[in-house]
Amino acid sequence: MKVAVPPLYKDMHNYISADLIVVSDWVGTLAFALSGALLGVRKQFDLFGILFLSFVVAVTGGVMRDVLIGALPPAAVTNTHYFMLSVGAGLLTFFWYPRIVSLQKQILLCDMIGLALFSVIGTQKALEYGINPLMAAILGMLTGIGGGMARDVLAREIPFVLRADLYAIAALAAGGIVSVGHVIGLEPQLPMLSGAGLCIFLRLMAIYRGWRAPVPRWEDK
Amino acid sequence: MKVAVPPLYKDMHNYISADLIVVSDWVGTLAFALSGALLGVRKQFDLFGILFLSFVVAVTGGVMRDVLIGALPPAAVTNTHYFMLSVGAGLLTFFWYPRIVSLQKQILLCDMIGLALFSVIGTQKALEYGINPLMAAILGMLTGIGGGMARDVLAREIPFVLRADLYAIAALAAGGIVSVGHVIGLEPQLPMLSGAGLCIFLRLMAIYRGWRAPVPRWEDK
Amino acid sequence: MKVAVPPLYKDMHNYISADLIVVSDWVGTLAFALSGALLGVRKQFDLFGILFLSFVVAVTGGVMRDVLIGALPPAAVTNTHYFMLSVGAGLLTFFWYPRIVSLQKQILLCDMIGLALFSVIGTQKALEYGINPLMAAILGMLTGIGGGMARDVLAREIPFVLRADLYAIAALAAGGIVSVGHVIGLEPQLPMLSGAGLCIFLRLMAIYRGWRAPVPRWEDK
Repeated sequence: MKVAVPPLYKDMHNYISADLIVVSDWVGTLAFALSGALLGVRKQFDLFGILFLSFVVAVTGGVMRDVLIGALPPAAVTNTHYFMLSVGAGLLTFFWYPRIVSLQKQILLCDMIGLALFSVIGTQKALEYGINPLMAAILGMLTGIGGGMARDVLAREIPFVLRADLYAIAALAAGGIVSVGHVIGLEPQLPMLSGAGLCIFLRLMAIYRGWRAPVPRWEDK
Repeated sequence: MKVAVPPLYKDMHNYISADLIVVSDWVGTLAFALSGALLGVRKQFDLFGILFLSFVVAVTGGVMRDVLIGALPPAAVTNTHYFMLSVGAGLLTFFWYPRIVSLQKQILLCDMIGLALFSVIGTQKALEYGINPLMAAILGMLTGIGGGMARDVLAREIPFVLRADLYAIAALAAGGIVSVGHVIGLEPQLPMLSGAGLCIFLRLMAIYRGWRAPVPRWEDK
Repeated sequence: MKVAVPPLYKDMHNYISADLIVVSDWVGTLAFALSGALLGVRKQFDLFGILFLSFVVAVTGGVMRDVLIGALPPAAVTNTHYFMLSVGAGLLTFFWYPRIVSLQKQILLCDMIGLALFSVIGTQKALEYGINPLMAAILGMLTGIGGGMARDVLAREIPFVLRADLYAIAALAAGGIVSVGHVIGLEPQLPMLSGAGLCIFLRLMAIYRGWRAPVPRWEDK
């Protein structure tokens, strides 16, 4: 099942502008790390706990994907830039928390880009490792939302991503489009761009128009 | 340590009636997924969170086992029926929650069958991958209880499986019998059937007779 | 990236006195398992839950490291002594809780030794598997603190290791020294001993002198 594949980012040269991918990857990592650091400050973790939480949010999704497709060691272990970015985000938040909080809107935007990109890249990487399209889309979603889930479990909150704002649905939609593109034989560029676009659109609608997934009609038993 | 083995379900043809295995696997997956979906509705997750929780409960145990024995990608990633069953269970619960709640007794029974079967299959698979019998039994138990643990951690409850109703002990007993059978050189059928039977027996005693594992005599310090 | 390496403990013969390693490994495992069992009793888990929590605390760090460097099945699965020690620690705590509680100071000392040793061994093992020195130090830290994190998540507490007493920093310092030693080409003995010493020193200062990592100056928003 597992096939040797060249590193994703190299392949990406053939898909979409590699620069765009790299920049978005950095932006997304930074946004995820900031969201971890902000929660760490709110929960009064110490400096180290804050840096750790930043790193966990930035990499957990990708690590889960890599473990599940058998791509070991995971990209977050073989590359050091995820760690560097996370530490940078954690330090920024530790020393300039009020300033970072005032940028929440911008961070939310970066988070959106990160979610979109992580989900489409995650799906594409799973497909390249020979995972079937359905589960590849789900692994893409997991790449996008895994960090947020880990953040909330460690900080003892019910994972936000399971409750609000179309977060996971947007990630799955992005992955689904990449998988459909793969099934009907398209080159990956267009599905990846469309998937990322749909993900961002859904998140924008959730935030500014209040779109929600249906909640159960039933009272707590 | 890791050896190439044919897929478990194919092997099973030589062990027990393959149909029985497949049916029990479906029944167990469904029961586990329903237990996740029920908790999701009680916690007022949205539709997507409910489907996600169903899936997590159905597959986490098996995924943990496959990661730990190095059988990557895990069965839940290479097969899609676990996902299909989970989504089905989640939708049923979302739309007919009161009806599903009224079937709690039947679900409990399915859960029992799932626990028994997941534990014996998990142990047998670990043995086939060359894991020593002691740890194979523990990996079998993990296959059985992992989903419930993940469910409770995500929903921010102390894992039920660690506190009540001989749940984990029954799973370990099932795995232990399979391992003992392996050590004394029996064909797997009889130990697997006996292990599953013992697991169901212990759970029935726990539920209807109030059998409990001992709790500490000491007050909270 | 992954290279075949002989088992760690065999290699260790060439590094430091193998006896010292083995004894410290047992001491650390025992201390970690006791900390899990103590929390299990406080939370009124049943006997089985207590044994399970002991085992989880003893092995989770090492298992996470082994999964992330691709050393599957993990050492805690291929060896049974971690399990035996954990069960022993759990039984001791279950039957003689007041006595074990009265030994808290000694357990803290063992925990310190365990943390130090797990961190340096974890880092060294990651280096031997070809992981870059920066991430190797982080994987070493994870080996040391993973068990405590899992313990607190399962018992529904905010992980202590992220909040107090230089716990994670001490583990990272230990790993960092091993990695630096590796980069400048030293034999592993000296860095491993120095790293372990520094880790114990930092923990002692945290406990007896109140050394702390800085906490954010900002109020909860």
